Amino acid sequence: MRLAVLAAALSLSLAAQAKEGMWVPQQLPEIAGPLAQAGLELDPKQLADLTGNPMGAVVALGGCTASFVSPDGLVVTNHHCAYGAIQLNSTAERNLMTDGFNAATRADEVSAGPTARVFVMDQITDVTDQIGAAAGTLSGLPRQQAIEKAQKALIAECEAEAGFRCTLYSFFGGQTYRLFRQIEIKDVRLVYAPPGSIGNYGGEVDNWMWPRHTGDFSFYRAYVGKDGKPAAFSPDNVPFKPKHHLRLATESLDAGDFVMVAGYPGTTNRYALYDEFQNVASWQYPVVGQHLKNIVALVEAAGAKDADLAVKYAATVRSWQNAMKNWDGQLEGFRRIDAAGRKQAEEQAVLAWLKSQGRDGRAALAAHERLVALAADARATRERDLVISQIAGTGLLGNLRQLHRLAIESAKPDAERAPGYQQRDLPAFEGGVRQLEKRYTPAMEKQLLAYWLGEYVKLPATQRIAALDTWLGGNDAAAITRALDATYAGTTLAGTDARLALMKADRAAIEAHADPLLKLAVALTPTLIQLEDVAKARAGDNSLHRPVYLAAVQQYKRSQGQGVYPDANLSLRITYGNVMGYTPKDGVAYTPFTSLDGVAAKATGTEPFDAPKAQLDAIRAMSPEQKAAVPVNFLSDLDITGGNSGSPVLNGKGELVGLAFDGNWESVSSNWVFDPVMTRMIAVDHRYMVWVMDKVYPAPHLLKEMGAAK
Amino acid sequence: MRLAVLAAALSLSLAAQAKEGMWVPQQLPEIAGPLAQAGLELDPKQLADLTGNPMGAVVALGGCTASFVSPDGLVVTNHHCAYGAIQLNSTAERNLMTDGFNAATRADEVSAGPTARVFVMDQITDVTDQIGAAAGTLSGLPRQQAIEKAQKALIAECEAEAGFRCTLYSFFGGQTYRLFRQIEIKDVRLVYAPPGSIGNYGGEVDNWMWPRHTGDFSFYRAYVGKDGKPAAFSPDNVPFKPKHHLRLATESLDAGDFVMVAGYPGTTNRYALYDEFQNVASWQYPVVGQHLKNIVALVEAAGAKDADLAVKYAATVRSWQNAMKNWDGQLEGFRRIDAAGRKQAEEQAVLAWLKSQGRDGRAALAAHERLVALAADARATRERDLVISQIAGTGLLGNLRQLHRLAIESAKPDAERAPGYQQRDLPAFEGGVRQLEKRYTPAMEKQLLAYWLGEYVKLPATQRIAALDTWLGGNDAAAITRALDATYAGTTLAGTDARLALMKADRAAIEAHADPLLKLAVALTPTLIQLEDVAKARAGDNSLHRPVYLAAVQQYKRSQGQGVYPDANLSLRITYGNVMGYTPKDGVAYTPFTSLDGVAAKATGTEPFDAPKAQLDAIRAMSPEQKAAVPVNFLSDLDITGGNSGSPVLNGKGELVGLAFDGNWESVSSNWVFDPVMTRMIAVDHRYMVWVMDKVYPAPHLLKEMGAAK
Repeated sequence: MRLAVLAAALSLSLAAQAKEGMWVPQQLPEIAGPLAQAGLELDPKQLADLTGNPMGAVVALGGCTASFVSPDGLVVTNHHCAYGAIQLNSTAERNLMTDGFNAATRADEVSAGPTARVFVMDQITDVTDQIGAAAGTLSGLPRQQAIEKAQKALIAECEAEAGFRCTLYSFFGGQTYRLFRQIEIKDVRLVYAPPGSIGNYGGEVDNWMWPRHTGDFSFYRAYVGKDGKPAAFSPDNVPFKPKHHLRLATESLDAGDFVMVAGYPGTTNRYALYDEFQNVASWQYPVVGQHLKNIVALVEAAGAKDADLAVKYAATVRSWQNAMKNWDGQLEGFRRIDAAGRKQAEEQAVLAWLKSQGRDGRAALAAHERLVALAADARATRERDLVISQIAGTGLLGNLRQLHRLAIESAKPDAERAPGYQQRDLPAFEGGVRQLEKRYTPAMEKQLLAYWLGEYVKLPATQRIAALDTWLGGNDAAAITRALDATYAGTTLAGTDARLALMKADRAAIEAHADPLLKLAVALTPTLIQLEDVAKARAGDNSLHRPVYLAAVQQYKRSQGQGVYPDANLSLRITYGNVMGYTPKDGVAYTPFTSLDGVAAKATGTEPFDAPKAQLDAIRAMSPEQKAAVPVNFLSDLDITGGNSGSPVLNGKGELVGLAFDGNWESVSSNWVFDPVMTRMIAVDHRYMVWVMDKVYPAPHLLKEMGAAK
Repeated sequence: MRLAVLAAALSLSLAAQAKEGMWVPQQLPEIAGPLAQAGLELDPKQLADLTGNPMGAVVALGGCTASFVSPDGLVVTNHHCAYGAIQLNSTAERNLMTDGFNAATRADEVSAGPTARVFVMDQITDVTDQIGAAAGTLSGLPRQQAIEKAQKALIAECEAEAGFRCTLYSFFGGQTYRLFRQIEIKDVRLVYAPPGSIGNYGGEVDNWMWPRHTGDFSFYRAYVGKDGKPAAFSPDNVPFKPKHHLRLATESLDAGDFVMVAGYPGTTNRYALYDEFQNVASWQYPVVGQHLKNIVALVEAAGAKDADLAVKYAATVRSWQNAMKNWDGQLEGFRRIDAAGRKQAEEQAVLAWLKSQGRDGRAALAAHERLVALAADARATRERDLVISQIAGTGLLGNLRQLHRLAIESAKPDAERAPGYQQRDLPAFEGGVRQLEKRYTPAMEKQLLAYWLGEYVKLPATQRIAALDTWLGGNDAAAITRALDATYAGTTLAGTDARLALMKADRAAIEAHADPLLKLAVALTPTLIQLEDVAKARAGDNSLHRPVYLAAVQQYKRSQGQGVYPDANLSLRITYGNVMGYTPKDGVAYTPFTSLDGVAAKATGTEPFDAPKAQLDAIRAMSPEQKAAVPVNFLSDLDITGGNSGSPVLNGKGELVGLAFDGNWESVSSNWVFDPVMTRMIAVDHRYMVWVMDKVYPAPHLLKEMGAAK
């Protein structure tokens, strides 16, 4: 493959300038020069218009990114981002996860579920002053409560007009606060998903890996009421008409070409303290990772005997597996680049620089000391916090606990309720109550709780919870089994209707309820609220000290000529760079494009390499030139992370050339310490998407709608 | 690495012309044009002078290739070719396999053992007419006996002058016979071997693999009597003065550059019948391969408890492992390129073409039919032939069996003795008797024999051997153990002196000997001679029919415009091509050079990745430019096989640029069906050899002797 060769060359000649940076839109003027140099043909000012073309076409799904690709609200994102919706619409008879979904007409498009959302950017407001005024010089819990109160007030004001969703984002640990207002589209429908053997080709085996051959794309459509305003699902709703949508690129994308991504990356920790890094590298990833492996093994063993259970836990298991593999990769990356050593050296350099500043450095040094103490404080109870959060969050028990909490919060004025329990949260809350029955089985839930309770009984006496001990009535496996069996045998709240009814019950009614599982949930609530307050007090202190220290870090970095951008926080970011491969090890070059022949070469007939016969036949029928025109996946040196999944990849003209869906194995550690040599983004090429929709699992109407009809 | 990138490009643009062909020296005029086109700067006529420069510097070691690199008889070959000599000179206190060997002066150079040889080319004579006259129209055993008789006579005549070793080689299944006369140097000494952590870096893990970082080189010196004639080891011997020796290249070797190899490739089977191929692909490699895996496991388990045993069996186990991995790779390659399908299609094309030739094709078609029948005949007893050959060839039992056979053969006139038992063979025979004690332990030998006897007792009754059944006295494991224990407990012939004495005993004395193990050996001899005659009869028929069929295959190939060269047969061959990487799979390119950084990156501190500290320190101390000047291993598209190990790699000027030491994993199946896309040779770069001898395990005197002193 000619392109591949060019790219191997480029990957090496350009390697030195790999593009660290998840830039906030406000930084566009700052990076206009580098953007043009990298190959952007648009005026950077055009990018700065977040509701204009092309940025106005980029939308958030909550956890993923997507984009409009037609004037009729057609949305493209990753197959794995639509996986929950695909699963919800699957049945034992009609498994959309394996067979795919292809709505013949708009009437055949199915709801992506009550919690599915498309968020369209409306405006961003800097509210740092308002939050600062509210928090003043408070510390600890009062500070966090003051910030939350101000946050709620700002959001309430922002959402006063119906149809909007507002979110407050904190940058640099509280140095800047920005309020995002987005149109919240609530009627989202599944339009098209390729068979799993294309959309998830390679499965967990290939996850995070290169070379890659995954058709990780699916289509939603955004619907609104006839008045054009967001509305809950209704057959009468009409397609949303976005102001802007992306066009598919018409020119070839080649190695070395400029690409950029706009999206909603979730979390990075590049400004974390060395101590915080170490907690993750030496405890969370290895120890919690082992717990995840253990519970995945439990679900897989049960799923092997029960297909219905396997379907119900598929999305949950997939997310656990994704985390496990990611953590293992991060640990490998930490070792490869000696992340601990680098992290420590960087922090020591900042501290030394601060010391050299005399009086000017003292506040930041003091803030650093306080942050180190806060980190130590959190570490002291990490085992307990893990176990309690897992128990309290499990399936039906977790849902009943939320219902109890809802009753408690509902007694307060809306503005004073805990986040997640306000009026604005109720539709999503109800969606959660309804979806539960498709996401758990009582037998599996008992097994999972037994696992975590087994960990709970190992905790030191000072960290035990009286209510849980009373309920257990013992410390051994037999006691755990006995308590779980009795509780789950007695509960009458497994059904959706019974739980929906509880949404309307008041606190007294719920606390007087005889149901044994609800009684357990009620008994856990005081502890959970207490732990929440401890965490909030830490958050309050953090928001006091971290901005002071991070301002110093920024100053230091600028003094070293380094670019400075805030850690990812689920808010809109822009990253740019070039299509290029990399050198994973001496003697080996990864080329930046994969090919249809590579899809066929991997095909074994067995999941996850069970490429459909129609696809293999289509490949066999093609000439080498025809195949060369359909790259499958490609690499580029962009800086993305989880949350960027589904992000449109744009060329220098702002046209759609692919969808980001993964990072390479060597990049995963970059969430903590960026490795410019090895960090690469993996995207599915738009030419492969179009080819699949043309030749393999045909959707000519969608190609026509996107202006890609042949 | 800049070179690597260039190479990736070259590997793809040149892939279509990968260089199949192990050309015999007589074909040099035929390939003069392609040689020049590929980049040879010498006049091809110069290459045709096999005793001139540079070809006169290339020597055979028997199983490996080597070359003179100084006027004082210094010979360079692979570390793995010198491994037997390194092992022979190792003791529990001084393990040269791990520590290396570096003779400070010539007086410190140690004997490579009584069987070590350096063969220097003297002349090649075509003797097809003589063999043809002797064989006439005979068939079966008489034909083979007539050929062997003629062969012995030719060899005896050729070796009439002392100091020469002559060998008859058959080409194209007996179409052409050539007699090679070589100077046989018998005093070979070990001069230099790097530590095993350099010479065998990567061990079995990296064997056949790319990327590779092995310093697979060692030095011998050839010694002769004071008269300049070959002589057995003696402290009085003096270094041999070769007419020619190779010079180290002074210009950089880069991707795309011309390289050629002259050497002694052992066996290829590219002209085998489809049926013969299938016997190997569906029985030998999978089934015999599993037996090898089983006996390797036995030796490793014993070696883990007994370091002395581990040393004694090290070379044997290494050769088994090499075969196992090679066979597995061949099977993988057969699947990848559908070798069975290709092989069958090619044979069908030849047969169809022959049929289209009418009367002219009939003889070849008939010959083909006879060859198919001969192959079926051989297959019918393959399990028995395997088991008997393994039992009869095992260590002490094998040695006693050879001693009995020697007594039988010695009663005949020398010219009528079986090959291996003639006067000319006695020095090597004695060497074998002497070496045995360093290559076996009675306990391990019993375990190995028990394994093969376990297989023996599964044979059908018609294939059993009465003498063995009598000795066993039963068919179960207990009987096997009992027989072995009694026999080995009673033998007095484990010592070298006792066996050396038997070399002088006559047949009657040996057959009357009371030693129980010798009795077993004697009892096996008649069956072995009978099986030998069956094999010879088949060989006789083969030599009658195969030349007829292969002449037709040659004609057919030439009619298709394909080059034709005979299968490898341990005789001198030339292969040429260019330095280039390859694409093992979609999205991945293997670059043609590896680097010192790659050596360091693989280092784990644990064998086989236990790079010496001195080496890692030296690498750390180097600048990127210094490191770029020392490539470690490189790839080229040359056509080699086992026997080529140690072959000098020459540049376009005939200068030494490296030593061939391996093929890549994807190439191993090319012994049967050549894959031009994936077949690559792996060589150690001369710049790495010089660097190791300069910076890591210094031998400044040798560098000076080679003219490579800094």
